[in-house]
Amino acid sequence: MASQGRVKVGIIGSQFEADIHAASFQIMPDEAEVVAVASPTPGHAQALAERYNIPRIFTDYRQMLAEDDIEMVTITAPNALHCQMTIDIANAGKHVVCEKPLCMTLEEADLMIDTCRQKGVLLMYAEELYFTPKYVKAKEMADQGAFGKVYLVKQSEKHFGPHAPWFWDVNRSGGGVFMDMGCHGIAFCWWFLGRPEIRSVYCQMGTYVHADKTQGEDNSVCIIEFANDAVGLIEDSWARRGGMEDRIEVYGEGGVTHADLHMGNALPTYSEYGYGYAVEKAPTTKGWTWPVFEELWNYGFPQEMHHFARCVRGKEEPQGTGEDGRVVQEVLCAGYQSAGLGMKVALPFRPEGVRAPIELWKSPRK
Amino acid sequence: MASQGRVKVGIIGSQFEADIHAASFQIMPDEAEVVAVASPTPGHAQALAERYNIPRIFTDYRQMLAEDDIEMVTITAPNALHCQMTIDIANAGKHVVCEKPLCMTLEEADLMIDTCRQKGVLLMYAEELYFTPKYVKAKEMADQGAFGKVYLVKQSEKHFGPHAPWFWDVNRSGGGVFMDMGCHGIAFCWWFLGRPEIRSVYCQMGTYVHADKTQGEDNSVCIIEFANDAVGLIEDSWARRGGMEDRIEVYGEGGVTHADLHMGNALPTYSEYGYGYAVEKAPTTKGWTWPVFEELWNYGFPQEMHHFARCVRGKEEPQGTGEDGRVVQEVLCAGYQSAGLGMKVALPFRPEGVRAPIELWKSPRK
Amino acid sequence: MASQGRVKVGIIGSQFEADIHAASFQIMPDEAEVVAVASPTPGHAQALAERYNIPRIFTDYRQMLAEDDIEMVTITAPNALHCQMTIDIANAGKHVVCEKPLCMTLEEADLMIDTCRQKGVLLMYAEELYFTPKYVKAKEMADQGAFGKVYLVKQSEKHFGPHAPWFWDVNRSGGGVFMDMGCHGIAFCWWFLGRPEIRSVYCQMGTYVHADKTQGEDNSVCIIEFANDAVGLIEDSWARRGGMEDRIEVYGEGGVTHADLHMGNALPTYSEYGYGYAVEKAPTTKGWTWPVFEELWNYGFPQEMHHFARCVRGKEEPQGTGEDGRVVQEVLCAGYQSAGLGMKVALPFRPEGVRAPIELWKSPRK
Amino acid sequence: MASQGRVKVGIIGSQFEADIHAASFQIMPDEAEVVAVASPTPGHAQALAERYNIPRIFTDYRQMLAEDDIEMVTITAPNALHCQMTIDIANAGKHVVCEKPLCMTLEEADLMIDTCRQKGVLLMYAEELYFTPKYVKAKEMADQGAFGKVYLVKQSEKHFGPHAPWFWDVNRSGGGVFMDMGCHGIAFCWWFLGRPEIRSVYCQMGTYVHADKTQGEDNSVCIIEFANDAVGLIEDSWARRGGMEDRIEVYGEGGVTHADLHMGNALPTYSEYGYGYAVEKAPTTKGWTWPVFEELWNYGFPQEMHHFARCVRGKEEPQGTGEDGRVVQEVLCAGYQSAGLGMKVALPFRPEGVRAPIELWKSPRK
Repeated sequence: MASQGRVKVGIIGSQFEADIHAASFQIMPDEAEVVAVASPTPGHAQALAERYNIPRIFTDYRQMLAEDDIEMVTITAPNALHCQMTIDIANAGKHVVCEKPLCMTLEEADLMIDTCRQKGVLLMYAEELYFTPKYVKAKEMADQGAFGKVYLVKQSEKHFGPHAPWFWDVNRSGGGVFMDMGCHGIAFCWWFLGRPEIRSVYCQMGTYVHADKTQGEDNSVCIIEFANDAVGLIEDSWARRGGMEDRIEVYGEGGVTHADLHMGNALPTYSEYGYGYAVEKAPTTKGWTWPVFEELWNYGFPQEMHHFARCVRGKEEPQGTGEDGRVVQEVLCAGYQSAGLGMKVALPFRPEGVRAPIELWKSPRK
Repeated sequence: MASQGRVKVGIIGSQFEADIHAASFQIMPDEAEVVAVASPTPGHAQALAERYNIPRIFTDYRQMLAEDDIEMVTITAPNALHCQMTIDIANAGKHVVCEKPLCMTLEEADLMIDTCRQKGVLLMYAEELYFTPKYVKAKEMADQGAFGKVYLVKQSEKHFGPHAPWFWDVNRSGGGVFMDMGCHGIAFCWWFLGRPEIRSVYCQMGTYVHADKTQGEDNSVCIIEFANDAVGLIEDSWARRGGMEDRIEVYGEGGVTHADLHMGNALPTYSEYGYGYAVEKAPTTKGWTWPVFEELWNYGFPQEMHHFARCVRGKEEPQGTGEDGRVVQEVLCAGYQSAGLGMKVALPFRPEGVRAPIELWKSPRK
Repeated sequence: MASQGRVKVGIIGSQFEADIHAASFQIMPDEAEVVAVASPTPGHAQALAERYNIPRIFTDYRQMLAEDDIEMVTITAPNALHCQMTIDIANAGKHVVCEKPLCMTLEEADLMIDTCRQKGVLLMYAEELYFTPKYVKAKEMADQGAFGKVYLVKQSEKHFGPHAPWFWDVNRSGGGVFMDMGCHGIAFCWWFLGRPEIRSVYCQMGTYVHADKTQGEDNSVCIIEFANDAVGLIEDSWARRGGMEDRIEVYGEGGVTHADLHMGNALPTYSEYGYGYAVEKAPTTKGWTWPVFEELWNYGFPQEMHHFARCVRGKEEPQGTGEDGRVVQEVLCAGYQSAGLGMKVALPFRPEGVRAPIELWKSPRK
Repeated sequence: MASQGRVKVGIIGSQFEADIHAASFQIMPDEAEVVAVASPTPGHAQALAERYNIPRIFTDYRQMLAEDDIEMVTITAPNALHCQMTIDIANAGKHVVCEKPLCMTLEEADLMIDTCRQKGVLLMYAEELYFTPKYVKAKEMADQGAFGKVYLVKQSEKHFGPHAPWFWDVNRSGGGVFMDMGCHGIAFCWWFLGRPEIRSVYCQMGTYVHADKTQGEDNSVCIIEFANDAVGLIEDSWARRGGMEDRIEVYGEGGVTHADLHMGNALPTYSEYGYGYAVEKAPTTKGWTWPVFEELWNYGFPQEMHHFARCVRGKEEPQGTGEDGRVVQEVLCAGYQSAGLGMKVALPFRPEGVRAPIELWKSPRK
């Protein structure tokens, strides 16, 4: 493979997340270029390729892996496919960028990490909150001592339902909103606090609005106790009307900060006639709306993909790794178990025989 | 006693809360007047009486209870004294307004309720959030169906430590910030949802900042599950820098609303020189500050006291009762037990032999 | 007339402003009661009387003035009627509360002031911004030195059109939005700065949206230069979509403050289903809205009417007087003249032969 | 010169603006690289070069212009030097990026435009508000019809004094805050509305706080009337405490939008201890502050410089041109004349014999 020049990237998938990856590489083009896309549904890869001038199209991602010049492959497929795809990519000698959550089970997580290590490829875990500029600023202030000892970190992400229909199917997603978005909050709090050991997890969850569509929870509250005596409070919802909400709060003995990615960045706007685009998940562009500007950049996606490309060239060390994804996966499992038992679950926690984390809510292990 | 004219009121206490009561009756004067104040510390009652033109002063509240014309007595003394004072007031044939939380134990709560009932006097529980105009508006919208079925209600109250030093002493207060301010959130969520049965309580708490001053918790997170499938999420802190925070959030399948009593009502202000008064607990009036306007009115204190006086005249039915206070007390006990056990506690919960709720955190009952 | 007891009030008018007056006396009832209402349109006075339990109804306000026990009469009729009504009320020996703006011409203003003085009755000018709690707080801070020397005060009031159709008719209103709402900003800036002499006025205005309905301006920008070297910047609009906007900004050499009566006090709310009432002028209660709480109180109307009743009893000195109204009237005239000439107009300014201020815009005097 | 590869850039200046240019090219590096810096003060160019790894250093910019490979030169020197530098750069056959305002007089503007045209180089006018992402979003919505016909656009920029001491000297700057920052608002409103003809300008200005340091105005209000019947309202101040303010408001017959670059993007933060950096002009990092994230990007500087480099390569057409700068210069002159006369000034306006625009305020031309 090339040791210089722009990193050649292949994308698996063609929907919401795949579009974000393609757009992100286009926004920050100096380190990478997307040369291929693979999607099993006829026409889907084609459509993405046309939007972003991607030259090569595949319906079977394994064929894409046969392309010699591709150096890095990003996975945007349903959660249940992450593990097998990662192994295939690693076996093809290419670096892996895997969307969150890492996989379905801790066994899968271990296998993914081990395989990539053996094959000498990077397993990069795509947690974009590590790159969200507003949240990065909050962490910088914390690390500069602005808040003294931080004892509480909160993150929440809420909207009215997942981007892709497969999320409703717990066999493909592994769970509901806690699986889909709780993984962000878990990673965020852990990263923000400097990756301390995690002591325990408590979760409350329920299916309040979308029981007709899914067995998964559509609202969750999660409390994490860290070994440094800090607490993480994570809220997620697929039952929040009015558009996206993505917020953090940080409390230390010496100060506080709040950040809101949507209402807190947006232009308060009223329109009788509507306009092009407000924000991900916005129900309308008429009446009062909260349009964002440069949405992907404000989430940190281009910065994240740019970083991963530089990792491939050895210019940076990966911020999000398979090990990060595994920590998140363990907390996800402990969270579902906790919701099932009604008690907090101590870590390390390694349930056996689980295929999907949500099973631990419905049938917690004794 | 009089059956018309302004209700004659006596106040027990002379500090922060007593001042609020006296000021509140002055702001809405058409239904009541404060005619007496009692405080054991020499000079304290005098000082309050001078600020508010209160004609009669006592150092022993029992002497004040001997005044025939007094019809209603408000209690602003430490929590550990609430029960005995209530019984004394009831025995004197006067109506009782008791500050939150109602008392120390469920046995006390039962005794207070029973005694007032036997004596034919009203036991009115002073939960001002029932009268906070901004929160009342949120409830009106909810009751009008704005949010459809509400599945999550949040309330938080945070600042950097209690008003009076006795709060630090758990023998007099019964606990830390969950006892001091958690009682607001419990009452609020329950009231907002229409007083549904409470199924379970989970609490996480710790002493993060003020361990040198108290054995009580200075930060708490509480999750309440209600029988109508709604959830309450209550956060309280004595460890929040930068002034007061008092907020709610309401999530229903059909909508959301947020309300912030401080930053959300204030005038964003920068001053090089400072000024008279910003807000309760504000650390300074220089630099950027968040001055409130008509602070008591925006909390609802004058409206609350006005309401209680009208209840004494039979013009209204008490919104906050001894039974409300007892429900809150039961959740407080269950919350401490839960924090001690690391599991959620089902209601009804009636621990025995407890003198202060915080004991259940330090030594949960099996 | 009575020298004690609640002041007996009659209201002239039955529409938007009359309703505010009636509601305001009901909210703060301890100093006054509304005993009569007069409106020429059959049924209108009746409807108001039923909403507020007003015992006496008249179609001719002159008949109402014959009621001996009425001590104070409030005028909510179109601007062109203010002068004659004031004279009639004064001649009946009753105190006058006149809604803004005071009248049509400076001649009328002088006549109103002189007549009331001769008859020994109070002429009270109803500028509610003197009582708006949030703005009062800003002035308190300024007077305490928070901002040092204030060099710029801004006030703006904007919505999508007047409450009553007569405002569109410049013969009855005297002008457009500058006449209707500019009077608030003029009074506010002057009052906020301590009533300094006014040096000059510059106005830019136009009819941008409602030319099919009115010859009056529907948007105006006004710059006032005060003798103490401070500047007032006043913006008003009948062409602002999305509901009401009422804001101030204060800039001093030592600090700044901002206040927003609507978005800045409201509960950010999203509703699929709608609810009872959001705020004056809100186009809908669905989607994102900005519901206010206790709207009248937050504007200061009950406090204002309470104050006027106390003035009648000699307990307070009127904050808003006929002289205030005359100052505003002079600035209104100078503003229209300025817009017509495209240059700033020095005060004192007393145009002759003018029937409606807007004439000075269309045909400025040389 | 090269027709491909990254554009080689030289910077004239080494202070605040020069640092922004250097940082901007570093943030978006794929189209340009800074290869030289020139500053007359010994050591200054050196310091900038070290921060940004710029290989070549000059004390005389004319020597830098002798470097063959340099293709584009950016000017960050005092306003009075802009014209001569532009001519020298053009004569050296290099493209020019000139900071705002373009120059001192309309004669200079014409000379700059003509010279660059004759020499076949681009004269690019550095108005970064054309690239500010939040403002660009507002314009996109307007262009999509969100607000219908726009009748009022406002822009304001305020802080407590200029970055460099030469701004206080009107012989070098040409004027005060209207010259320094009013140029932004003029360009913004004109650009936002689609560059309509400008009919008239009215300005009110004064020296309220910094009379000990400058003869220039430290606060200005400017009203522009456009030929399409829209109005621009521009406020600027060097007398605003509490940090930067940069805001826009847009009003159309069909809607409104607001954008605030500072408070509206920031993380509300309280710190007892302080932290690294809050925002340009912030007086402290302790107490409540408004830290921004990715400040340059949120202003649009990297996007602007990236765009200019692409213009050099022929990939884009310049958004900001010498002609834009000339329009702004004409409005600046008309604004000062207007403030001197107390009347609005019609365009076109070409005063003669003026060396600095501020002369027109102190001694307006008849």
